[in-house]
Amino acid sequence: MHNCLIDIDGVSVGHATDPALGSGVTAIVFDAPAIASGSVLGGAPGGRDTGLLDPSMTVDAVDAFVLSGGSAFGLDAAGGVQAGLREIGRGFEVGNTRVPIVPQAILMDLLNGGDKDWGLHSPYRTMGHEAFKAASRAPFLLGTVGAGTGATTATVKGGLGSASARTSSGIGIAAIVAVNAMGSATVGAGHHFWAAPFERDREFGGYGLPPAFANDDVAMRIKGVTLTATTIGAVVTDAALTKGQAHRLSIMAHGGLARAILPSHLASDGDTMFSAATGAKPLGDPAAFSELCHLATLVMARAIARGIFEAEALPHEGAQPAWRDVFGGSSR
Amino acid sequence: MHNCLIDIDGVSVGHATDPALGSGVTAIVFDAPAIASGSVLGGAPGGRDTGLLDPSMTVDAVDAFVLSGGSAFGLDAAGGVQAGLREIGRGFEVGNTRVPIVPQAILMDLLNGGDKDWGLHSPYRTMGHEAFKAASRAPFLLGTVGAGTGATTATVKGGLGSASARTSSGIGIAAIVAVNAMGSATVGAGHHFWAAPFERDREFGGYGLPPAFANDDVAMRIKGVTLTATTIGAVVTDAALTKGQAHRLSIMAHGGLARAILPSHLASDGDTMFSAATGAKPLGDPAAFSELCHLATLVMARAIARGIFEAEALPHEGAQPAWRDVFGGSSR
Repeated sequence: MHNCLIDIDGVSVGHATDPALGSGVTAIVFDAPAIASGSVLGGAPGGRDTGLLDPSMTVDAVDAFVLSGGSAFGLDAAGGVQAGLREIGRGFEVGNTRVPIVPQAILMDLLNGGDKDWGLHSPYRTMGHEAFKAASRAPFLLGTVGAGTGATTATVKGGLGSASARTSSGIGIAAIVAVNAMGSATVGAGHHFWAAPFERDREFGGYGLPPAFANDDVAMRIKGVTLTATTIGAVVTDAALTKGQAHRLSIMAHGGLARAILPSHLASDGDTMFSAATGAKPLGDPAAFSELCHLATLVMARAIARGIFEAEALPHEGAQPAWRDVFGGSSR
Repeated sequence: MHNCLIDIDGVSVGHATDPALGSGVTAIVFDAPAIASGSVLGGAPGGRDTGLLDPSMTVDAVDAFVLSGGSAFGLDAAGGVQAGLREIGRGFEVGNTRVPIVPQAILMDLLNGGDKDWGLHSPYRTMGHEAFKAASRAPFLLGTVGAGTGATTATVKGGLGSASARTSSGIGIAAIVAVNAMGSATVGAGHHFWAAPFERDREFGGYGLPPAFANDDVAMRIKGVTLTATTIGAVVTDAALTKGQAHRLSIMAHGGLARAILPSHLASDGDTMFSAATGAKPLGDPAAFSELCHLATLVMARAIARGIFEAEALPHEGAQPAWRDVFGGSSR
């Protein structure tokens, strides 16, 4: 177990990271089409090909998910991933052609000091292709990586996180997330993570929660009214799920977001959670799905805290400090 | 300030409570039609006239909300509230008639030991009318009251809760909720409430959170796979909101649910949150809506804990013990 998304068999992850741009792309590629869904609970989402994720829609499996920076410009990235999938003959069969199914969500990182003057063509299509080509079954670094490269929060640098768990019957579930919230994953002005109750093996420092909560600890801390944000992610399981069950898993992931970030789901957050099931393992008894749902909440909360804990500041004048810069936490 | 829903001007609350039935009804009545919305994130909802709450639908204001027990049988209750509203000439004008707009959500409390052999007519229509007639601007008791009468959770008796807050500019927001969760509002097997970080003035005992969290504290605790559940509630503000903003407020209330109950939003939960805005106060600057959203999460989390803290066991053999029975907390 590497405590990240590649703990699920049949899933590869690749990143394109550009610190000068202050942005990046993460591709999550399935060896075979995976039953997928997703849900948007933030008020300012940006997405591509997300309409098909509704359980009432016909296409029920995806070839890949893309998470990226770049706000709506970043929606070019899925095109690069589709190009890569086409090169290897992947896609939903329609007559004698194939259409790669690649839902994407973006986060807003245009105001973080990176060079955004790209002219006619945004760099995201190329970065999407790079992330696809880089996708592998190897464990990956967290923090200022891929879609988390340009991410920020109300208090400290955002980043890319991941975490995994297993149900009592051995079904795997893992989360990946790019944390770019209006709110904060840390409590008040301190170093504790809201997700602390769910932490495993000191994966984000083992700091627990504060011994007591002052009113100021739960007062609203947000980036500022004109800056949009967005936390985007996915939960993936090796269970065999229906598309409706996958949709529920995405709602449970939003519960992890609500647990890990305060406030979340604001009008200026585009908070979007994807979900996918590779189908390798039957669910077994009905309680197994409840346990899987419960763990979807927990792994997403943990992944969010890990993304913040592992982040490093961007190399720009005035870039938002990382958690470790502010609180002096030791590195991994 | 009474720290409950009637802290919002223009809102009356009434209950019908039947301990022998092991169920009840709560009516939330607006002096004038209130801009309203709502969202369903649980997997097993029961509702009446909830379709119009979508921001794309035409009718944008409601006369009342109803929360009740009785599972789908309980959906008769809104009919009783409509009858009461008709008696006083209330309702959406259509030609020369009026149709009272009364969205309702139910919770499943059929298996709690109460007498459910009601024959041809369920008691809920009459109880709905009673709750409407009882509706007033007086502070109301919490716990085993109204829609919370028959409610249970995974660990201790459920109940009806409420809480209120004000933004820095003086806008009011309050929550009311009937807590009947698959999961638990308390941490692990102990007496601490998940909502503790948000507690004000020891409103649910002032017990804080545990000093540390063991893995078992976050292991799944649910009622059992065949029992459905559901937490239903509403957040109401005196701000002037659009229907779209009201919808966002309902999503923020679900965030409070996710914070206060673990796990929440399961396939067997019908978790439904309504929202309404009486419109008495202009929102003012854009940050005010963010703060209102933030407080929607907090008041719902607090209301949930209060509902559990104030609950008393039903008078049936084998009824689920209340928090105070198990943990010996003092009464109000």
